[in-house]
Formats: sequence, C-alpha cells, structure tokens
Amino acid sequence: MNYRLITFVLGEIALIVGALLCIPLFIALGLHEDTPVAYAVAISVCVALGILGFALRPPKDKRDIRPSSGFAICGMFWIFIALIGALPFCISKHIPNYIDALFETVSGFTTTGASILTNVEAMPKSLLFWRALTQWIGGMGVLVFVISILPRNDKMSTALAKAEIPGPQFGKLVSKLRFTTRILYAIYIALTLLLVAILCICKMPVFDSFCHAFSTASTGGFSVKNASIAAYNSVSIEIVITIFMILFSVNFNIYFFILIGHVLKALKNEELVWLLSIFVAVVAIITVNLCTSKTYSSVGEALRYSTFNIASVMSTTGYGTADFTTWPMLSQVLLLAVMCIGGSAGSTAGGMKVSRLIILSKSSFLSVKKTLSPRSVPCLKIDGKPIDDTTLDNVRSFFILYVLIVLISTVLVSIATPNFDGSRSLFETNFSAVIACFNNIGPGIGAVGPTGNYAGYGIFAKIVLTLDMLLGRLEILPILLLFSPKSWKRAHTA
Amino acid sequence: MNYRLITFVLGEIALIVGALLCIPLFIALGLHEDTPVAYAVAISVCVALGILGFALRPPKDKRDIRPSSGFAICGMFWIFIALIGALPFCISKHIPNYIDALFETVSGFTTTGASILTNVEAMPKSLLFWRALTQWIGGMGVLVFVISILPRNDKMSTALAKAEIPGPQFGKLVSKLRFTTRILYAIYIALTLLLVAILCICKMPVFDSFCHAFSTASTGGFSVKNASIAAYNSVSIEIVITIFMILFSVNFNIYFFILIGHVLKALKNEELVWLLSIFVAVVAIITVNLCTSKTYSSVGEALRYSTFNIASVMSTTGYGTADFTTWPMLSQVLLLAVMCIGGSAGSTAGGMKVSRLIILSKSSFLSVKKTLSPRSVPCLKIDGKPIDDTTLDNVRSFFILYVLIVLISTVLVSIATPNFDGSRSLFETNFSAVIACFNNIGPGIGAVGPTGNYAGYGIFAKIVLTLDMLLGRLEILPILLLFSPKSWKRAHTA
Repeated sequence: MNYRLITFVLGEIALIVGALLCIPLFIALGLHEDTPVAYAVAISVCVALGILGFALRPPKDKRDIRPSSGFAICGMFWIFIALIGALPFCISKHIPNYIDALFETVSGFTTTGASILTNVEAMPKSLLFWRALTQWIGGMGVLVFVISILPRNDKMSTALAKAEIPGPQFGKLVSKLRFTTRILYAIYIALTLLLVAILCICKMPVFDSFCHAFSTASTGGFSVKNASIAAYNSVSIEIVITIFMILFSVNFNIYFFILIGHVLKALKNEELVWLLSIFVAVVAIITVNLCTSKTYSSVGEALRYSTFNIASVMSTTGYGTADFTTWPMLSQVLLLAVMCIGGSAGSTAGGMKVSRLIILSKSSFLSVKKTLSPRSVPCLKIDGKPIDDTTLDNVRSFFILYVLIVLISTVLVSIATPNFDGSRSLFETNFSAVIACFNNIGPGIGAVGPTGNYAGYGIFAKIVLTLDMLLGRLEILPILLLFSPKSWKRAHTA
Repeated sequence: MNYRLITFVLGEIALIVGALLCIPLFIALGLHEDTPVAYAVAISVCVALGILGFALRPPKDKRDIRPSSGFAICGMFWIFIALIGALPFCISKHIPNYIDALFETVSGFTTTGASILTNVEAMPKSLLFWRALTQWIGGMGVLVFVISILPRNDKMSTALAKAEIPGPQFGKLVSKLRFTTRILYAIYIALTLLLVAILCICKMPVFDSFCHAFSTASTGGFSVKNASIAAYNSVSIEIVITIFMILFSVNFNIYFFILIGHVLKALKNEELVWLLSIFVAVVAIITVNLCTSKTYSSVGEALRYSTFNIASVMSTTGYGTADFTTWPMLSQVLLLAVMCIGGSAGSTAGGMKVSRLIILSKSSFLSVKKTLSPRSVPCLKIDGKPIDDTTLDNVRSFFILYVLIVLISTVLVSIATPNFDGSRSLFETNFSAVIACFNNIGPGIGAVGPTGNYAGYGIFAKIVLTLDMLLGRLEILPILLLFSPKSWKRAHTA
C-alpha cells in the first residue's frame, strides 16, 4: 500500500471539498446567516489537510497503486470525505452531535436521504444547500468527480472508478477513462440543469428547484420541506420529478448511445426493459390494491400516489408524497421488494441493481434447467452477450453478502431499543431501516416511514446504519476490504 | 415420463398409507371414539387406489425412469400422500374444510408443525396420534420409507432419494441404497424408542410420550397439549427434549460412523462443529439479552427458556415453552435467523441447512479474497475435501431461489388481510409465517407465534403456505420442477 500517495490524494480531496464548501459559504453570507464561521473553520481544516498532503507528496515515479488496493482506498476516501463534509453541521451547532452530523452527511454523499432531522425547515438555507450538494456530488461518484477534474494516470483512476461505479460490470465508453467520466458528468449536469429549469417553470422557488434537482438527479431524496414534495401539492411537479427519477435510474451509457445516434441499440437494452416492466407492473398492482382497499377516494388519486412513490423508492430517491406505512400490507411488501431491487447499474440509483437481478434470475433458471438435462451446457446471456464466469461468480457472491449484511445489520440495530412511538412494530422499523439505508433509499416502513425519521435510534444503531449506507453505495467490497488487514500490507511492488 | 410406472408406485404408496392408517383406527376403536368410520373410508380409498395402480402396472422390463425425472416425481408423490393423508381429518369432520385438513397434513409430513387448530386438546386421541405419525414418517422421508420396505431397483430409488434427502450433497453409506436407508431408519427407530422410554421415566403419560417422541424425532413440533411442552412444567422433560431435538438435527451419517467405530472422525465433522457453535453462541447472546431486559426474574430461568426455545427453532421443531414474541427485539431477530439456518444436512431438521451456510460463507469469503489477489486459485473445502463446482453452483442457486421464494411468498400471503388480533404487526406476522412454514418450523413471531396459530389466514394464504412447506421440505427443486412442462414430456428413452 502506497501510504504517501494516499495521503497526497486525501489532501487533494480535502481541497476539493473545501472549494465546494465555498458555495454554501457564499449563500450564508448573502442571506446573513449565523453559519459563515462554521464554513470558514471547515474550509480552513480542508486547506490545512491539503497542504499536509502536498508536503508529503510522493516522487512522480511512485504515483501508482496495486489495482487490488483500489477497493480499500475507495472505501477510505469515502469515509474521509464524509468526516470532513460533516464539519459544517457540527461546528454550526445545527446538528450538535458529530455522529448525527456524520449520519446526515453519509446519507447525503451515499444519496440515501435518510435524515435525523425532525424539522428540516428550521435549518439555515446554506446547510440545506450543502445537504443537497453532497447528494449531487455523491450521486455520480465522489472519486469519478475527482478523476474527471484532476490529471491522474489511468491505472489508479480505473482501479478507483471500478470500485465506485455501481453495477456488476465496468465498461469504459471511450478509451480514456478521464474522457468517459467527463462525458458522464456532462450528461449528468445537462439533465440536472434541465430539471432545474422545468421545476422553475412549474413554479417551484428557484432555491428549492436547485436543491430538489440535486436530490433528484442523485436519486438522493433530501428535501428542503418537512412534507417533502407533497408540500407543493402540485401534480405537474410530481409528474416532472417522477419522470426524472426514472431517467436518473437508467444506465447513463444509454444516454451516451442515444447521443452518438445508436437510439435503437439504447432502447433495446435488456436492463432498461426489465426496469420499466417491473415499474409498470408494480404500479399496476399497487394501484389496484389501493383502489380495492379504498385507501384513496378515486382511481386517479391512487394512480397519482402509487406512481410517484414507487418511482421514488425504486429509483432509491426516497421522496414521499404519501405515508405509505398506512397502505395495505401487499403494497408495503411490494415497496420493500422494489427498494431492494433498485435502479440500473451505471446510474445514480442504489439498490441491488436490475442487472444483478437479471443475472441472478437467469442463472438460477439455468441451474434448474440443468437438473432436467444434465448434459446441456446452457450459456447466460445479457443483451445477446455471454456473461463470463467471473462476473457471474461476483454477482452471486454479492447477493450472498447482501443478504448476510441485511441480516447481521438487523441483528445489530436491534440490540438497543430505540426511542420511537411505541405503536409501530419494532421488527418492521428495524428491518426496513436497514433495507432503506443499505439500498440508499431513505424512508422505510414502520417508524422510519416517509413521515418519520431516524432521530429515535441510539448512537450504535446510527453507526451501523451509516456503515450500511456506505456498504450499499460502494456495493460492499470497498468497505469490507477496508477492514481486511491484507488490504493494508505494504507490498513489494508499489 | 413413464406414467404407468408412476401410477403403479402411487398405488403402492396409497397401500402403505392405508396400512399406516390402521394404527389410529385401532386406537379409535379401543377408545370408543366417533372416528372409526372416517378411517375405514380413508383406508378403502387407499386400497382402491392401490388396486387401480396394480391393474395399470407396467411390464417388468419397463420399470425405470430418467434420473432427471426423479425430482418432479418426488414432488408429485409428496402431494399425493398429503392428499390422502388429509382424508381422516376431513371425513371425521374434526377439520371440516379440506384445505385446512391439507394444511395440517402437509404441516405433518413436512415436519413443519404449523397448525390451524385453536384447541388441540379437543381433538380425538387417534387423530392426534395420526398427526404425530405423519411427522415421524415425513421426518426421515416418505420415499426413503417406501424404498426401505419395498423391493425396487436402485436406479429409480437413487433418483427419488436424491430428491428427498435434504442437504447439498448425497452420499450412500453402503453400496446398496436400500441398505443405506434401512441403516438410517434403524438409527431413527432406535433413537425414537429411547426417547419414548426416557419421557415415560420423566412421568409423561405413555400416549403423550409416543406422540412427542414422534414429533421430536422428526423435528416436527406437533404437540397433544395446547400449551405444548410447557403444559408439563417439568425441567427434566424440557432437558430431555432439548437434547433430543439437537440430536435429531445432526447428520445421521455421524451416528453411523460412531456405530462402526469412527468416533473421532464423526466428532470432527465440520457441520457438527458449526451447528453446536451457532447454538451455544445464540443461547449465550439471548440469555444475556433476556437477563438485561429483565424478561425473566432469574438467570436460571432465562437460560432454561432460551435453551429450550432456541433448540426448538434451530432444529426446526417448533415446540414452545415461552411466548418468544414478548422477548426483546434482538432475541426475536436472532430466532428468525436461526430459523432460516436450520439443522444439518441428512438430519430430520429443516431450514437452509448448516452445511449450505458453510459453503455459502466460505465461497463468499473466497470471492472477496480473490479480489485482493486475482491470480490466486482458492479452493473451497469442507472436512478437508474440496467441494466440486456443480455442488457449489447448486448451493448458490438454491440460496437465490430460497430468498426469491421467501420474497414472493410474503407478497402472495399479504394479498388478503388475514383475520388476526389487530395488535400484532401484519408484516411481522406474514414474513415470519413464510419463514416458519418454508423452513418447516411451525410457529413464527407476530400473530403466528407459539401462542397463536394459522387459523386466521384465508384459503389462498393457506395454499401458499402449504406449498412453502413442501418447497422447504423437498428443498425447492421437486416442487418447482413439478410445474415445469419439460418434466412431463414423454422422452424417447424410458
């Protein structure tokens, strides 16, 4: 492990966070808030760390890492960025407890959207903006962001990008990784700005439009309103955000293919077809369920609430316009299921990813088929291309680890009794809290539903859930390998 | 598919069930119950089916099946045996609804122990005995029972036994399958009789001793008392049953090795070590949890209730001496976890099986390790022997199907709102009902806890849960392949 290189990059990351913190600082100064000192202190810390990193920089010929170290380093960078990103909340005393501030910041960077705040509207606007900005940066990837703006050799960047970009397979769009990440960021920025413009047209205030566009683009789900998107009570805003939540849970490669003219190839994408099919099917079932159970007075209303909230949990955004904890059990169970599935690989959405679901279902189906015809050699294909054994192996291991982490986290979160309204089932609350944090959604069911928050949990449970968010966002390995001594041993090469 | 052979074997199975039904008939006659007519009718049906099967018997040279058909045939035989086994309950009008009777019978044969009866003690003794007997027969395997008493060529028997005996790998103890099954049954009978004797010594009535020995040996969990084993309020009975529940969730091969003198080899068995370690660890954690939460007044009492109830759910028996739905959340979540793990392969216990957990954990661990050293070729070993790729592939596919079935079943069971006391969380109830039925335990948490029962569910949910019990007992494939048209196509050979 190349410690000097890591320190150097950590310094660079600190400087970038420091630069980003200038935006809420200017907002705070413009609005005469009481927070500028907090930003100034946080920015100073960042600059100091940046100078320290620069002082310890390694010689130019020793700026490389083993590709296998990429995962652990990626995990460490994310924890580091959360640690410094939490400073403004804590220093400004608007979230006085550092663990709470860390929970909120990790929830931002991992685009989870789970909050410990009981009254969002009481927060200074600059902090709300910072909350939304952490999501926007985290959505496309903190390191992808770093890679796309800093000159760096491709070997290390590829190792880091592989660890950070979600999905079972990693493919570059163009030969140079830096150009790939720049293309992705260009698409991301363009779509975000388009959303800001449309939200403004739909009469959402400009500040709110920016914050919600950031949260929607990253499928994060932090809102500046206590009632989330429901606060605007506007069908047009809901439709716009629904469409964009779906757009942002689609693999960004598809937009690239559309840009270069391969529209048909893009639309035939198997993951896209599955994603939309699951979405439409679940919307249909839940709408019927809401109508037969008479939860809403009209079919139109049932369709309105089911479409928005399913798009919200399936894209792992987590905005709420309805308290789905009051929906019938079938709807709630289906919501939990789509929470676990999540969006597409290579999108800003979380969850297990639709492509993994495809690989898992197809491979199990083939296994069953093989029992019937033992001599056949079936081949697993996606988009007509065979899936190699390593990818299949990784996807299956991922799934096993996924289930184990949900199980172990639920046990750990259950150790202490949280401080929630007693009428909700604790099992439902704890289990769905883990699902909602691990899949980067935000609200679960039970006491952590759309109208609740995570403030009732104790310190230990908050730390477990914070780790779950990181495990989910980085797809397990980077955080797991962070705790493996083997990751940190000093190899002879590099 | 060789339909005439299948009809012939179905006839034989009907005759065996008919013969077994004579035992409760004699009990009913001896006790002057109102049930003998019901048994007589059921036995007549069995005899008629037996004659029909004999009439349609295939010529001697056409008595073979494709090995790949074994799974589907096994699934069909199990459903058939449940259909005729349910007749006495239904005809005697003690469980008037046939779906309810089927639920209870499948619960028996699959050794689940889930019941729709609200008052067990009101049932005639002969029916209680039949309930316990179905468990005892189902515990070691209905078809293994058939194989061990009927002369049959080894090819078909191996195909059926492979489909029925639980666990990731199937190994014959001795070269002839029929002798293997006879050895297993001899061990089973010996241990069961030993348990009957010890229970009688502990002052349990003789009838109760037989019924409880049958339910314990099969890790079924049907009791003849409403309060289950708690009705005797005897520490010695609880200790005896705890020990035997653990004994019956150990791979029976181990007893065979002990019998032929390989004691050390038997005790070093990796699955046994894991099983006992998990058991001891969970007992320790739950006892501490019960003590710190002051659920019981003394440490001794906490240890007594935790040991018995954990042995009960881990062995997938399902006896209760305490209402663990009132335990703290950590204990309940841990109980759900050990419910899913279950006992050893090759035992009468259900669940996912400890050996599968070992293979899954080791393979995931190796996958993670491989990310760090991509060039290493790690090998997965159990008991020092490498696991071949097909087994590994099957175990992983099994796990994926396992999770999918739990998910889909929970959705299906949630479709209609059941008729339970409203104070329990419906999600907890539905989810744990699926876990408890699929893993063949019996009681779950929520409204289907040790003090509750499944009577509140509607017809559709009962059918789903019945299928779950069969899917769990036969480890998914036989029931899944039963619905595959390919299983039923008439092949050129056989």
